[in-house]
Amino acid sequence: MNETEIRAGETLLEMPDSFDAGVYFIGVIHTPWTQRGACPKQGDPREGPDCRIDIADAFLPALAALESQSHGQVLYWMDRARRDLATQSPKADGATRGTFSLRSPNRPNPIASSLVTIVSVGADHVIVRGLDCLDGTPLIDLKPEKCPEWAKD
Amino acid sequence: MNETEIRAGETLLEMPDSFDAGVYFIGVIHTPWTQRGACPKQGDPREGPDCRIDIADAFLPALAALESQSHGQVLYWMDRARRDLATQSPKADGATRGTFSLRSPNRPNPIASSLVTIVSVGADHVIVRGLDCLDGTPLIDLKPEKCPEWAKD
Repeated sequence: MNETEIRAGETLLEMPDSFDAGVYFIGVIHTPWTQRGACPKQGDPREGPDCRIDIADAFLPALAALESQSHGQVLYWMDRARRDLATQSPKADGATRGTFSLRSPNRPNPIASSLVTIVSVGADHVIVRGLDCLDGTPLIDLKPEKCPEWAKD
Repeated sequence: MNETEIRAGETLLEMPDSFDAGVYFIGVIHTPWTQRGACPKQGDPREGPDCRIDIADAFLPALAALESQSHGQVLYWMDRARRDLATQSPKADGATRGTFSLRSPNRPNPIASSLVTIVSVGADHVIVRGLDCLDGTPLIDLKPEKCPEWAKD
């Protein structure tokens, strides 16, 4: 998408001149999806494909004991999103809504979270099920999540 | 906490020299809790206290249509956390675990999410139930969430 192109229903925010905090990319997520349109609407932690998250060397010591966890929350950075949209019309109904009333990847801080099943933990990577993002998406956090009701028994 | 003090079980990461992306603080969260120890372990979107989120002027246009949503996901920035811990021992069992196998606020990117009930939406603020963070915590995202099973009927 051309970053300067505005679609129907889109209006722009006046963005601040500077950021308030910085984010480290702590790893890279690998998925089967290389184009936005191919990504599932929501990941499936039960039946979704195994995806590999490669953890950056500097952050490997923080993986200790993760293998004891069955489920996790993955936060990722949607690096291809645009951040300056006040309103959008991504739904089929053609209505225009503010960015905060939509789950569009286009938002001031393009962060998304997925609930995942932790399949295995390697020395430098984690295999999970439940992601829905593009191949190559930067990882920004990984934390344990309580075992969901559907996964019990 | 003294930022240079290391507690039992804590080891440090060698942090990268620079950030990979920047975050905007899009608002300020107001809660009844002014000290870390007073915060609940997890917010309660049913019975928790009403909390006010003031949205920064630049981002107000993105609130449009939020009043049509019953529940939301709030992402916030834990600005008092330290970011350089590889391992920690915050649990009563004294075991040392890697940061990614803990939900401690101390993590490379100190981002947390809460499921909230949207109580009301004003011109420059949102009232929600379900938060667990300190008063004054920076808001980094707000997006709609499907009505949870417990909230139906």
